Amino acid sequence: MSARRPPPTDPLSAAFDAARRAALAGEVPVGAVVVQDGRTIATAHNRPRALKDPTAHAEILAIRAACQILGDERLTGCDLYVTLEPCAMCAGAIAFARIRRLYFGAYDPKGGGVEHGPRVFNQPTCHHAPEVYGGFREAEAADLLRAFFDGRRG
Amino acid sequence: MSARRPPPTDPLSAAFDAARRAALAGEVPVGAVVVQDGRTIATAHNRPRALKDPTAHAEILAIRAACQILGDERLTGCDLYVTLEPCAMCAGAIAFARIRRLYFGAYDPKGGGVEHGPRVFNQPTCHHAPEVYGGFREAEAADLLRAFFDGRRG
Repeated sequence: MSARRPPPTDPLSAAFDAARRAALAGEVPVGAVVVQDGRTIATAHNRPRALKDPTAHAEILAIRAACQILGDERLTGCDLYVTLEPCAMCAGAIAFARIRRLYFGAYDPKGGGVEHGPRVFNQPTCHHAPEVYGGFREAEAADLLRAFFDGRRG
Repeated sequence: MSARRPPPTDPLSAAFDAARRAALAGEVPVGAVVVQDGRTIATAHNRPRALKDPTAHAEILAIRAACQILGDERLTGCDLYVTLEPCAMCAGAIAFARIRRLYFGAYDPKGGGVEHGPRVFNQPTCHHAPEVYGGFREAEAADLLRAFFDGRRG
């Protein structure tokens, strides 16, 4: 409702907004958005602390919410936008959900499971791999995480 | 309450009972149990179809339930018993939950993420790896899955 801040014009911006809400809530700032045919189906941010649930990553929550909204355990044709490279757990969920395209912000050499470590989608046993596009607004995503962890150490 | 069928005497038996309940409910027969200090904290079976949730694997549901019961996003000191080798998604959740020991039934060359494919716990970036013990009651676990999939094809 504020004239000062326009609404997000694209799903990745909405994911970044969700990540900022995570930081304000004391959660690691990662946000995710599920989109189908240009329509936002679900938006979520990390909530493992609030929910006392180690699986409550932004991607998992967004996928679960989108499945409830669409009434289907598969999100065929849906795309996922995330501010950070998904971990192995979330990559597995993305494959099970049959996400069509994955767009993510910063690469995550320490915890990523797509372009690093287990490289879940590159395994011959992976039954569904989305198209993957990474490295969007990397500096912004990295700054968000750095500010959050600096704040916690301070 | 039946004299014919004694209660499960160990967590892996309870996991197998849960897997059989999954099959009766039309879900892929995998069961999981979280144990702390010899006490069963949570039992679950696969429910992605019923819950319309691609993340609703037995391990994820058991871990989430145990976290709610214990009021903590970490299950430090808890052990997980599963009838089948966990996939990459579940292996990631096991790491985040800080499960102490993982015991599983059948190895899963097609979908497993522990001893096959992404080998999540073997990655240098894995921040917590449980002790892993696999191959318990393999024939029973494999028979359960085979009977289920034969029944679906029939």
